[in-house]
Amino acid sequence: MTESSHREMWEKLDLDLDAHDALLEVLGKFYGDIYMSQQNRLQGAEYLDFVLSEVHGLRIKELQDAKAEGRKVVGTFCVFVPEEITLAADAVHVGLCAGADAGTDLAEQLVPRNTCALIKSFIGFKMAKLCPYTESCDMIVGETTCDGKKKAYEAFNEIAPTYIMEVPQTKTEAARALWKSEVLRYLAEVEKLTGKTITPERLKQGIKTTNAKRRALQRLTSLRAADPAPISGRDALLVNQISFYDEPIRFTAKINELCDELEKRIAAKGGIAPAKTPRLLLSGCPMAVPNWKLPYVIESSGAVIVGEESCIGTRNSRDLVDESGETMDEMIDAIVDRYMKIDCACFTPNTERQENVTELAKRMNADGVIHYSLLFCQPYTHEALKVDKTLQAEGIPMLSIETDYSMEDVEQLKTRVEAFVETLA
Amino acid sequence: MTESSHREMWEKLDLDLDAHDALLEVLGKFYGDIYMSQQNRLQGAEYLDFVLSEVHGLRIKELQDAKAEGRKVVGTFCVFVPEEITLAADAVHVGLCAGADAGTDLAEQLVPRNTCALIKSFIGFKMAKLCPYTESCDMIVGETTCDGKKKAYEAFNEIAPTYIMEVPQTKTEAARALWKSEVLRYLAEVEKLTGKTITPERLKQGIKTTNAKRRALQRLTSLRAADPAPISGRDALLVNQISFYDEPIRFTAKINELCDELEKRIAAKGGIAPAKTPRLLLSGCPMAVPNWKLPYVIESSGAVIVGEESCIGTRNSRDLVDESGETMDEMIDAIVDRYMKIDCACFTPNTERQENVTELAKRMNADGVIHYSLLFCQPYTHEALKVDKTLQAEGIPMLSIETDYSMEDVEQLKTRVEAFVETLA
Repeated sequence: MTESSHREMWEKLDLDLDAHDALLEVLGKFYGDIYMSQQNRLQGAEYLDFVLSEVHGLRIKELQDAKAEGRKVVGTFCVFVPEEITLAADAVHVGLCAGADAGTDLAEQLVPRNTCALIKSFIGFKMAKLCPYTESCDMIVGETTCDGKKKAYEAFNEIAPTYIMEVPQTKTEAARALWKSEVLRYLAEVEKLTGKTITPERLKQGIKTTNAKRRALQRLTSLRAADPAPISGRDALLVNQISFYDEPIRFTAKINELCDELEKRIAAKGGIAPAKTPRLLLSGCPMAVPNWKLPYVIESSGAVIVGEESCIGTRNSRDLVDESGETMDEMIDAIVDRYMKIDCACFTPNTERQENVTELAKRMNADGVIHYSLLFCQPYTHEALKVDKTLQAEGIPMLSIETDYSMEDVEQLKTRVEAFVETLA
Repeated sequence: MTESSHREMWEKLDLDLDAHDALLEVLGKFYGDIYMSQQNRLQGAEYLDFVLSEVHGLRIKELQDAKAEGRKVVGTFCVFVPEEITLAADAVHVGLCAGADAGTDLAEQLVPRNTCALIKSFIGFKMAKLCPYTESCDMIVGETTCDGKKKAYEAFNEIAPTYIMEVPQTKTEAARALWKSEVLRYLAEVEKLTGKTITPERLKQGIKTTNAKRRALQRLTSLRAADPAPISGRDALLVNQISFYDEPIRFTAKINELCDELEKRIAAKGGIAPAKTPRLLLSGCPMAVPNWKLPYVIESSGAVIVGEESCIGTRNSRDLVDESGETMDEMIDAIVDRYMKIDCACFTPNTERQENVTELAKRMNADGVIHYSLLFCQPYTHEALKVDKTLQAEGIPMLSIETDYSMEDVEQLKTRVEAFVETLA
């Protein structure tokens, strides 16, 4: 496929071609600086580089081809939207969260300035006509997790009709019943959208495909317990980010190949950084493409990242749907149960997350944790204080970072991270 | 009752006596400046002055006396906690929201700095040992409305055990079912706390008492449609604030007396300000005692406030519980239905509020609306943008204010409000 056919496609999607060119140029340079500069990278990283280089190109072409065949594209902003059901209707499930400061000025016409960068970014991308994913969607699904997103979808709905799922705020039986009714409502909506009936066979396949993807990500997580760390945190984050964009069966195969390579490297005592390099777990808010600022700062400060406890990380891969169900009822219940395990900070209480962060830090042999909150993200900023206390009691040091997508604080972050890493040596 | 017996009571409640003395002194001076300076006040305002002067004195003594008789005290932070049920168990229902910058430094040890002043205030009051209401409570009830409060209660729970009610985020049937189960759970919890069974007779009485209070407040609201405005916004706000503290039957009688006086004043064409004084509706976040900053600024800028569209205002008095129910089931359903009408910005969508603000502005013959959001309150800051659009379409000017409890921005607010009022003249 040629560059000119990409441009034709973007034009059809009504992107702002000049602004989009500028975005891709900045993105390419940013990616080069942060990713291509790495030494001793895996061969399997070629897949990551290729997907990223074609994230607005070939992958969008695939979505257009799928649409031409009558398939539908569903865009989401949250790991609560059950991909199993989307896949069971033969639809494409893609993530729409955005990680760059683009269109922020426009977004601030629709949402308050005191809104986190992730929200301003997806709204800004839409308003500035920069996101071919949003423009490819036949259905956009929002959800009631945090106040910021919940209220932002009301404004977003005016420029991009958005279907809302209600995520409960506790994990009581009544809350589970509400969530189950929302899962069933989503299923009916997807059937209506696609014109396909979700049979038990199709749903079983959707569950299998999604679980297989999660198992590959779990495998990657486990391999990162090795010292020396076999893969950089940047590359591992990229794997998690790509899991929201790429075709799931291809993605799963590629990540399993990457894990095969990692196993060989570990057996040969090889790594991306020398043994005994300070090991850090990242914990907190999701980092959407191309939000690689903090991982880059950390890995340029003499440390290596060995895990991402976030929605674009273990929060999305930790739990599988039980595959023993055969009837629709059994499978729906299994899906509901699996999603109710998500330890999002929107729940109260959310003590599971304290346990999960601690368990992951220990399992990854982390020397410390960097808690990352997007500025104005109230749920994770609150939990940063709790995670700090929990980790202190376990003797695991933590650094709490609050930041956004701007590059203004990079030097300041670097100073803080370097000082933290020094205390771990 | 003497000052020294008050001090003894406060000491028993483990207040910080010196800090509490200092608070009362500041409060007294603040009240004098803002309230006692008013000309042409109502006779019925004596009740307000007395309640406020004894808000930490005689009223706390009454709570202690009730407790000595075996009654329980339930403290709340939100108009979603069904007072009907509290009263049906012969318990005392009081509001714990706080409106002063006290103990903020302490609160910031437990919650993020980017938390609204109302939350920091109630946590600060507890940590600084300043609130005799919190210390008198046998049960404290939080709720999942905004992220700020939802997560703050987790921290607050460590210093003051807090029972949490889940408020849903939409108004679907499934959301109503969740809320109904929470109402029933609250009823059972109150029965357990008080050792009293809530019979249909008792619940009916609870509904009647609470409705009577709301009717008195509705009557006050309606009378404020008159020009000249018969009561200042400050005094009307105080009435609403006191509705969360005082004994409800006494309060209802006193407010109805006040309304009798207002009717006479209106018949005589009297008012608190000259006819044709620019009339403003306040809309947005609740103003808890002693948060009188913005009303004072507005009424010192040549305008008069003719309504408060907030939880400490019409949001709490607009809807009655249907009184036709006889069985427990019927009455519980009537309570559930009434509370599901609350147009809190925590709901999505929340289009009712747009309609309610517009209707109130028109009914009160308001010349404009001042929308008030507490800094970092995401739900109301989002809705400020929507309310502005709605009112624009109706030709009603709106000024959006974001502020907190500090006095630093008073001059700046005054400049903005004066400029806004000038455009209305």
